Amino acid sequence: MMTDTNKLALKPGAVIGILGGGQLGRMLALAAAELGFVCHVYAPAGDNPAFDVAARHTAAPYEDEAALLAFAKDVDVVTYEFENIPDACLAFLVDRVPVRPGVNVLAITQDRISEKNMAVDHGVGVPDFAAVNSVRDIENEIDRIGRPCVLKTRRFGYDGKGQTIIRDGDDLAKCFADIGEQPAILESFVPFDLEVSIVAARDVNGKIVAFDIPENRHENHILATSRVPANISKQASDKAMEIAVKLATALEYVGVFAVELFVSEGKDGQEPQVLMNEIAPRVHNSGHWTQDACHVSQFEQHIRAVAGLPLADPFRHSDAVMYNLLGQDGAQWEALGGELTTQENMCIHLYGKAEAREGRKMGHATQLSKRKH
Amino acid sequence: MMTDTNKLALKPGAVIGILGGGQLGRMLALAAAELGFVCHVYAPAGDNPAFDVAARHTAAPYEDEAALLAFAKDVDVVTYEFENIPDACLAFLVDRVPVRPGVNVLAITQDRISEKNMAVDHGVGVPDFAAVNSVRDIENEIDRIGRPCVLKTRRFGYDGKGQTIIRDGDDLAKCFADIGEQPAILESFVPFDLEVSIVAARDVNGKIVAFDIPENRHENHILATSRVPANISKQASDKAMEIAVKLATALEYVGVFAVELFVSEGKDGQEPQVLMNEIAPRVHNSGHWTQDACHVSQFEQHIRAVAGLPLADPFRHSDAVMYNLLGQDGAQWEALGGELTTQENMCIHLYGKAEAREGRKMGHATQLSKRKH
Repeated sequence: MMTDTNKLALKPGAVIGILGGGQLGRMLALAAAELGFVCHVYAPAGDNPAFDVAARHTAAPYEDEAALLAFAKDVDVVTYEFENIPDACLAFLVDRVPVRPGVNVLAITQDRISEKNMAVDHGVGVPDFAAVNSVRDIENEIDRIGRPCVLKTRRFGYDGKGQTIIRDGDDLAKCFADIGEQPAILESFVPFDLEVSIVAARDVNGKIVAFDIPENRHENHILATSRVPANISKQASDKAMEIAVKLATALEYVGVFAVELFVSEGKDGQEPQVLMNEIAPRVHNSGHWTQDACHVSQFEQHIRAVAGLPLADPFRHSDAVMYNLLGQDGAQWEALGGELTTQENMCIHLYGKAEAREGRKMGHATQLSKRKH
Repeated sequence: MMTDTNKLALKPGAVIGILGGGQLGRMLALAAAELGFVCHVYAPAGDNPAFDVAARHTAAPYEDEAALLAFAKDVDVVTYEFENIPDACLAFLVDRVPVRPGVNVLAITQDRISEKNMAVDHGVGVPDFAAVNSVRDIENEIDRIGRPCVLKTRRFGYDGKGQTIIRDGDDLAKCFADIGEQPAILESFVPFDLEVSIVAARDVNGKIVAFDIPENRHENHILATSRVPANISKQASDKAMEIAVKLATALEYVGVFAVELFVSEGKDGQEPQVLMNEIAPRVHNSGHWTQDACHVSQFEQHIRAVAGLPLADPFRHSDAVMYNLLGQDGAQWEALGGELTTQENMCIHLYGKAEAREGRKMGHATQLSKRKH
């Protein structure tokens, strides 16, 4: 039963290189270990909880070519836990070892404008947007985009960092200063019923499977909870899957990715509207519940894809609500000596971070319940 | 909501010491990491797959007091993955750091005679047995025990090692020589319908919870499959739980343990007979399916207990069959490039062992299906 997938598959004992030492790298390493792989985590020196669960690690800057060379020689494939890896680092590695998902994926998704252009080119709906490089650009575009709207840096933003809302009467120069006067995107606010995400995987042969769609709630631009199943129509869910397939195919993606989506259900028999907010070219916080509620987690699914193994059926056996534990919750959890651990059907995941700063993701907890339908 | 349990609970970031670097130590370390603990694995130099997923490890003999002292200073609690730790090692550690389950537990369960005597003292049924130290002892006891019967070394046996069957006509001196002429136990063969095990946990306050009971099938004295739920009556299942409670209470046990049991259902309205085969004072191969079929795995449950955290509800969301992957299967898995990974709802766990010797446990796979009742 040899397939193309199998021919490309890494054998047990192969070494998976992971760029980034945070909680996503840690959970990827834990999943890789369960599949019999050895992990080598590469990250700049600092608080790197992924180091604690990996057979080998390198603490070095992403610009250190000697360290990167040794890393490339040691590993069979490279993947990454976050999208803001410097271009030069990936360019250096990709000449020496397979990098999955590919370098093109990052080039596109690191830039909000190229990401949205790519989406539009493939028939994926997005909120109105404009590239702006100056206060003058903002002045020229803001009437078309409308207020309130959002001004975001094109690159390196996450969890609400590098963005500001422009409301009626706000001074545009001040708003541009707020985001550091960097190349930016101006995005219209779209009215929507729900924020959801689709977390899916594409294997080396182009097969795509998706987990059930969670409904996400943010607080202060940081994900607070993901609840699955989302309260959306079959039509909206199908549209989300179409979007995932279009984007992953266009990017020739290999691995797990998430697409954050705005859903407005159609009133009076109209079709629902599903617009792309952004692509995360990696495992995603809104997919953490898969560890406890599915036969395969997003982390194992990603490792399977990058190792060239067949994807697993992402069957969901339970309903779930995932709660992020941020700095203050983490400290509270510690002080209470495990109150969360006393709650029924609450699956706890802590990241082993040394310091619990305000708002820092310290762990998550997924509460399971019997699947209703 | 402070309880006694909570007062004793280790905080995230605490260090769990694990004696033994095999697959059980590895899966304990993976579970401890998910709870935010740091692991330090101690094992003699060799193929220690647990080292690959632990923040720290010590490769040293169990007799190396300098290494043990450094280990004791580094960790907040010590647990172990297997019961054949030398007494002197544990005696050294227990003066310096909490050891869970305790030292008494090992003293009793390392010796098949004291284990069975303890069981009998607490009203737990066992097959007829006799302590035998010589061929003469065997001659004196064998008529009462009956043939065929089993001769096992009192200590250090596992997976069929250190045991032999005595059949009609067998030469007793040869049988005794087969097991190395060591202090031994002679056990009667009991007719039974099924081999099952109960995998349960006791916390520091004495609370005991058990996973659903699996039905086990052995091949060449090595566990081949565990299937849950077992095809046994409610009465037999209740008796198994009674046995688990009696034994864990008598041993003042803290952590996960397994009791292997022989079940004969009562014919014509009689009560079923449930006899203890042996106690495993640790996580057990017949509990591996809990990783995939329950809200909490036996590994996390054990870490919770030894860390003083509340036990989790061992709810089972799916039916399951666990298949051990032995040396030859492991090699086959590798050769086929992941055929197992193509099977639906098959959750794969490989142990990252360097060498796949015949009969060596290389991994396991748990196939899940919808829970029937």
